[in-house]
Amino acid sequence: MDTAELRIAEVRLTPILIADPPLLNVTGVHQPYTPRLIVELVTEGGTTGLGETYGDATYLAPARTLAAALPGHSITDVNGIFRLAAEVCGPPAPERLGPDVGGLRGALSADKLLLSVLSAFEVACLDALGRATGLPVHALLGGRVRDRVDYSAYLFYRWDHHPDPAAPRDDWGAALDPAGIVDQARRFCDRYGFGSVKLKGGVFHPDEEIAAVRALADAFPGTPLRLDPNGGWSVETSVRVARELHDVLEYLEDPTTGTGRMAAVAAQAGGVPLATNMCVTTAAEIPEAVARGAIQVLLTDHHYWGGLRRTVELAALCRTFGIGLSMHSNTHLGISLAAMTHVASVVPNLDYACDTHYPWQTDDVVVAPPVFEAGALPVSDAPGLGVELDREALSTLHKRWLDDDGRMRDRDDVAAMRVADPGWELPVMPRW
Amino acid sequence: MDTAELRIAEVRLTPILIADPPLLNVTGVHQPYTPRLIVELVTEGGTTGLGETYGDATYLAPARTLAAALPGHSITDVNGIFRLAAEVCGPPAPERLGPDVGGLRGALSADKLLLSVLSAFEVACLDALGRATGLPVHALLGGRVRDRVDYSAYLFYRWDHHPDPAAPRDDWGAALDPAGIVDQARRFCDRYGFGSVKLKGGVFHPDEEIAAVRALADAFPGTPLRLDPNGGWSVETSVRVARELHDVLEYLEDPTTGTGRMAAVAAQAGGVPLATNMCVTTAAEIPEAVARGAIQVLLTDHHYWGGLRRTVELAALCRTFGIGLSMHSNTHLGISLAAMTHVASVVPNLDYACDTHYPWQTDDVVVAPPVFEAGALPVSDAPGLGVELDREALSTLHKRWLDDDGRMRDRDDVAAMRVADPGWELPVMPRW
Repeated sequence: MDTAELRIAEVRLTPILIADPPLLNVTGVHQPYTPRLIVELVTEGGTTGLGETYGDATYLAPARTLAAALPGHSITDVNGIFRLAAEVCGPPAPERLGPDVGGLRGALSADKLLLSVLSAFEVACLDALGRATGLPVHALLGGRVRDRVDYSAYLFYRWDHHPDPAAPRDDWGAALDPAGIVDQARRFCDRYGFGSVKLKGGVFHPDEEIAAVRALADAFPGTPLRLDPNGGWSVETSVRVARELHDVLEYLEDPTTGTGRMAAVAAQAGGVPLATNMCVTTAAEIPEAVARGAIQVLLTDHHYWGGLRRTVELAALCRTFGIGLSMHSNTHLGISLAAMTHVASVVPNLDYACDTHYPWQTDDVVVAPPVFEAGALPVSDAPGLGVELDREALSTLHKRWLDDDGRMRDRDDVAAMRVADPGWELPVMPRW
Repeated sequence: MDTAELRIAEVRLTPILIADPPLLNVTGVHQPYTPRLIVELVTEGGTTGLGETYGDATYLAPARTLAAALPGHSITDVNGIFRLAAEVCGPPAPERLGPDVGGLRGALSADKLLLSVLSAFEVACLDALGRATGLPVHALLGGRVRDRVDYSAYLFYRWDHHPDPAAPRDDWGAALDPAGIVDQARRFCDRYGFGSVKLKGGVFHPDEEIAAVRALADAFPGTPLRLDPNGGWSVETSVRVARELHDVLEYLEDPTTGTGRMAAVAAQAGGVPLATNMCVTTAAEIPEAVARGAIQVLLTDHHYWGGLRRTVELAALCRTFGIGLSMHSNTHLGISLAAMTHVASVVPNLDYACDTHYPWQTDDVVVAPPVFEAGALPVSDAPGLGVELDREALSTLHKRWLDDDGRMRDRDDVAAMRVADPGWELPVMPRW
C-alpha cells in the first residue's frame, strides 16, 4: 500500500438532528430531537472513514476547526491529530463549559470537550485504515476476544409522547410507575433478548424507584439489575437505596456526585459496587477515585475518552487496579454502536453488558442497522467498522438540522422539561 | 488485502549466543556470551515478521510450545495469541522460577515469564502486519510523536577482559574507579553523542560509587545522571546516597528492593525521584507502589510487559498517575532496539532518554545496524520495524549456541563471577 494514499484529502462534517423519545432523568427530559455530528474522512486513496459524536454547538465549533486543519495528515497519525487539535482548537470559550449534556456527564472541561470531538475523528481514522487494509477495526486494536458483545436493556421513565404535538411519536407508551417499567423491560427483553436491565433513575422519589427495581427483580428473577439516578441523591439516600437493593443490584451507578461522596457511599453500601460515568470521566479524576475507593466499576465511553485506543488503555488501567469495566451510552446511532462493539470485543476485562440507547432511536445513518440477538451484537469481521453510510438518511437528518430554528441544536433537558412544566429548574443536587 | 494471507504459516525460533563484555553488577559479572532468541513469523502471504527476547532455557521452552501452536492464527489476532499462550504453555516448572536473569529483574513469576516470551511474538506480529500493509510499526500504534528517540549512555564498572582466555575481547578497557568511569563516559558521549548518563552501580562500596557520580558531574556539568545499584542497598544507605547526590541525579534507580523499602526511601530521598525496573515489573505490583508512593519513574520494557501495545497501555497508566516514564534495557540486539525505538516514538510522556546496552554489543542479526547520532536514533518510516535479518550472522550466532557445552545457554552472572572468584556467592541483599 502506498502510504501517501492514507493522507486525508477531505473532511465532511454533517450535523444532524435525530428523533428522541421523551425519556426522563434527574435534570429533565430528552428533547424531541437531539444533535449528533457525523464525521467522514476521505483519504487521497479514496477511502472514507466514518465517525460519530456529540453534535451540540460546543462540540461542533472545535470539530470544524480541526476538520479544516486535517487535510494532508495521515489517518495513521492519530497521535499527531490529537496534538494538532490541541494546537488549532485552543481552549473553548468559558461560557461553553459547565454542566455537560444536561449535567449528565459531569462538568465539561476543555480536555473532555476536545477528546469527545476527537473521538469521532479517531474512529473515522480507524475505520478508514481498516477499509484501506481490508482489516476490521478490532484487528487494528489487537484482535477480538469475543465474537458477540452483550448489551443491556436501558429502561427509562418516560411519557407517552412529547408535549409538542409536532414532535415525533413512538409506540412504547408511558412508563411512570413500577408496572410501566416492568412492561417496558418485558418488551425490551422479548424483542432483543437482553439479559441484564438498567433503569435510569433520579426521576421520582427514591422509594418509588426502589419499588420499580423490586418489581423488575420479581418479574425477571436472577437478571442483573442496575439503577442510575445520575448523582441525584445524598450520601444518606444512596446508602439507604444500596442497602435496600443489595440483593438484586449488579451495581448502583452514580448515586451521588463527587469523589468524596461516592467514596462515603462505597464504604457503607453493603457490598453493592458503585459504577460511574460522572465521577470519573477524565484521566485526571482517576487517581483520587482509586486512592479513596470511590468506584468499583467504570463505565467507559469512547466518546469521552478520546476514541477506541484510549478506551483500550483505560481498560488496561481498570484491569490493573481491579476496577470493573462496563460501557456507558449517550443517545447515539449505528456508527457509534459499531465502534462500541469493536472496542468492547477486544477488551478482555469487559465485566458487564454494555449500555446502549440505540433501541430508543428510530433514525439512523447506516445501511442495514444492526439487530440485537439474544441481547448481543455480532462483532463484524468486515473491513473497518463494517457499516455503510446511508446518504439519503444522512441528508434527511441534516436537513432537519438546517431547518431547525436553533432550539434543538443543543441538547437541553431542562428546557425540554419547561415545555411541560414552565417552572422547572435544574434541580439543586442532591435532589433527594 | 486478503486477510487469509495474514495467517501464520510457519514459526522459526533461533536461539543464539552473543558476545558480552565483562560488565559488573551487584550479583556478579556478565558471561562471555549471553543467550537471545530470534523469532520469525512467516505468514501465508509470505511476509516475515521479526521479534527478539530472552533466550535462556526458561524462556525457550514456552516459546517452542507456543510456536508449535501458532500456525493458522492471524498476526492481527494478538489478543488471541496471548490467550493461546496461557492455554498451551501452562505454568512453568517451579524450578524455572526464582530470581530472574541473575536477580536483576526481580522475581520471575509465571505471568512475567510468559509475557516476556510473548513480547517477541507480539513484536513479530506487528512487524509482519507493518510489512504486509506497508506501514511502519509506529503507525500501527497510533503514530509517532517524535522523529528521533533519545538514548542514554549506559556505563558499567568492568574488567578489561573476561578471565577465560578464549572469551571475546573488546577495546574498551577496564573501568573500576571514578577516573575509569569518566573515561568510559567520555568515549560513549564522544562516539554516540549521548546527552544523559547512567551508571550501573551496586558493585563497589556506595562511597566509591558516589565518588564516581561526582566525577561524572564534574566532567559533564549539567548532564542528567542516573545510578542503579539493582537493589543492593539498605534503606539507610539508599537515603544517604540520594541525599549526597541530590543535586546531580536525574533519578536513583532501584536503590533497594521491595515496595515497602522503596517507599521508605522515597519519603526521605530529598526530592530525588526513585526509578524502577525491579520493584514494579508486572501489573500486579502497580497498585501498592502507587498507593505507597514507592516509585516516581517507571522504566518500562516491552519484553517484560508483553510487547509494544501493552507498553503503550502502561505509558497511559503512568501518565494518569503522574509517574515518569523511562525505558529499561537488558542485553539486546537490533530487532529489540528497533522495537524499543518504535514504541518510544509513540508515547507522548516519555520523560527520559531510554537505556540501551546496544553499544556494548559487537554482534547483531540485522543488516545495517543502527547508528546513534547526537545520542538518538531516527524513527524508521519503513514498513514494519524497518530492519532486515542478516541470515549469515544469525546462522553464525546460532552455531555458537549449538556448539556451546551448555554453560552459556542460561545467563548466570554469579557463575561467571566464580570463574574469577571461586568463593563468590549471590550477595545477601541489601549488600550495603
